[in-house]
Amino acid sequence: MTGAPALRGPLPPGSTIGILGSGQLARMLILAATRLGLRCHVYADAKGPACDVAAAMTIAPYDDTTWLTAFASEVDVVTFEFENVPEATARTLAERVPVRPNPDAFRIAQDRIAEKSFIAGLGLAVAPFASVYNADEAKAALKKLAAPAILKTARLGYDGKGQASLTARSDAAAAWRRLGSVPCVLEKRLAFKQEVSVVLARGVGGTVAAYDSPQNTHAGGILRRSIVPAPLEPAAQVRARDIAARIAAALNYIGVLAVELFDLGPEVPLEHRLLVNEMAPRVHNSGHWTLDACAVSQFENQIRAVADWPLGDPARHSDAEMLNLIGQEANAWREIASEAGACLHLYGKREAREGRKMGHVTRLLPKGTRG
Amino acid sequence: MTGAPALRGPLPPGSTIGILGSGQLARMLILAATRLGLRCHVYADAKGPACDVAAAMTIAPYDDTTWLTAFASEVDVVTFEFENVPEATARTLAERVPVRPNPDAFRIAQDRIAEKSFIAGLGLAVAPFASVYNADEAKAALKKLAAPAILKTARLGYDGKGQASLTARSDAAAAWRRLGSVPCVLEKRLAFKQEVSVVLARGVGGTVAAYDSPQNTHAGGILRRSIVPAPLEPAAQVRARDIAARIAAALNYIGVLAVELFDLGPEVPLEHRLLVNEMAPRVHNSGHWTLDACAVSQFENQIRAVADWPLGDPARHSDAEMLNLIGQEANAWREIASEAGACLHLYGKREAREGRKMGHVTRLLPKGTRG
Repeated sequence: MTGAPALRGPLPPGSTIGILGSGQLARMLILAATRLGLRCHVYADAKGPACDVAAAMTIAPYDDTTWLTAFASEVDVVTFEFENVPEATARTLAERVPVRPNPDAFRIAQDRIAEKSFIAGLGLAVAPFASVYNADEAKAALKKLAAPAILKTARLGYDGKGQASLTARSDAAAAWRRLGSVPCVLEKRLAFKQEVSVVLARGVGGTVAAYDSPQNTHAGGILRRSIVPAPLEPAAQVRARDIAARIAAALNYIGVLAVELFDLGPEVPLEHRLLVNEMAPRVHNSGHWTLDACAVSQFENQIRAVADWPLGDPARHSDAEMLNLIGQEANAWREIASEAGACLHLYGKREAREGRKMGHVTRLLPKGTRG
Repeated sequence: MTGAPALRGPLPPGSTIGILGSGQLARMLILAATRLGLRCHVYADAKGPACDVAAAMTIAPYDDTTWLTAFASEVDVVTFEFENVPEATARTLAERVPVRPNPDAFRIAQDRIAEKSFIAGLGLAVAPFASVYNADEAKAALKKLAAPAILKTARLGYDGKGQASLTARSDAAAAWRRLGSVPCVLEKRLAFKQEVSVVLARGVGGTVAAYDSPQNTHAGGILRRSIVPAPLEPAAQVRARDIAARIAAALNYIGVLAVELFDLGPEVPLEHRLLVNEMAPRVHNSGHWTLDACAVSQFENQIRAVADWPLGDPARHSDAEMLNLIGQEANAWREIASEAGACLHLYGKREAREGRKMGHVTRLLPKGTRG
């Protein structure tokens, strides 16, 4: 990123953070920035939940250089709520204003093939995988890795979209065509004990603030529940953080990074036990509990990192369970609001479509309750 | 309030809360409402810190019936960040939209004479006081109550403004003239052990959620520090809550009410020990620690109460110390942001004038640390 503008020291209160995206993650980033006396300017191709609280907004296509240039001139730093920002957009902005994390992180995270190759290249364990660019490769990959396996589009998949589960009897070529005949990756489906994640913030100087790892449960490809602390011995916790910190350092990353890991269980030697599933170069659903169980949340630490503030204390004051409210589940808001120790978050979305994340609830328990 | 519109059941997510005032309390109310999926429309006579996060705003004089009427038509309920809203404003709005708390609470809280008379009329203890409408009454009151005493304007005083300390040698008449020859109240200055407050929310059906009482320290008439829990035995805690709940019930109050109390100490019988100093019909600076040490803050409970939602759990998960950042003190934001367990809040005010509340910091400690 030679030639790109660099911030000189922390942005003072009153500065403006530019955020690409107008969804619930942007909304929660704005709430965190506001708490620190910072303003937020949202840039998105459509209005969303973040617009209710944005100090300023630009609704324009992500490839509109004129609007991007105007946006860059009005903000002090740019960050993102999602990783599927077109790389050209990030680069256009990065020529004009500091962009954090840097566009390389997005380029890698946007493509499962690049991501897995990058992580494996760091010497970190990933589930066996093969890249699939055509129907023949799909068949060959399934044969080589052996079922069960999951075929995933290399780009633009999220929340279980763009995926197909394959058994030994599946027609891998047909599955590849159903996914749109686009570059894919075939991953071996492993019998892991649990899925955990690491959410950490990395600051401008390379300092890292890592939250305790939650155990995550998915349903239908969508995160359902995160429980913290995950049942993970201290050495495995440290190993998980180390994996995430190595990825962040290799990317020269600034901001919050989430890394999902498969835990094969304590009977597997530590260096082979935790496999990287995927990473997200942004605040992450499995870190939402930090809003209620920590002095400084993942959202605030993302803002602190990109504004070059000192990172905040990631220590937990409580144990927590975070449950996503998906689709019609959010209709139970009144009952949830009545529960002792329940922290209810609704994202302000009008329409409760099936599979849509409408909110979440964090249930707090005294620290140590979960061990 | 016969004839005034009434809400029928809780306001669903997506509804709009109208807030009078654009200061930091409105700002924190908006952050809380946003978390619940509610929108906020600010009405104020000047832009302030709340405007950065308001979904809509009206900047117009508080006595402009045209703008007030338009505002009333765009919101589902109206509440306030400050008690000095002109009574006519509150009544104009109350004819058109539910107003919570009801304007009677403001009428009483706006006038120290009405307030003290009202509270004493409930059989609750207040510090000895006398109303002062002219210079002769000022002299007579000082003689009757005996120095030391404080002369306060009956209306529009806050943060130590509109007050004069009187000793036995003071010229009470001159002091009254210096305060503008307006109606005042003379209060006997008592040798109290500590000042504590009760911050509670009262819902539509009369349910009450009371936070643990903090001990408050003032400097120069401005709240400096709140420590929670206050050193107060359980019986005195209960008594304090009971006093505040009785005031709230007598006002048919909906929303957050703060009551400041002088504690004469454990050697005084319980029924005479806690004297009501004053009340605030709004979220209160001595409740700011609830943002960080409770699952549901005073701001969220204010929103819940006025929207007829179930009140949230006021239980503390941590002990806390809240320190106001006044004027230039907020310049230490970088150092404070580095502290472990520190929750920093900056209000987004541009100019750090002397005596101006620029932010606050809550320092969390494990529950039980303070006893």
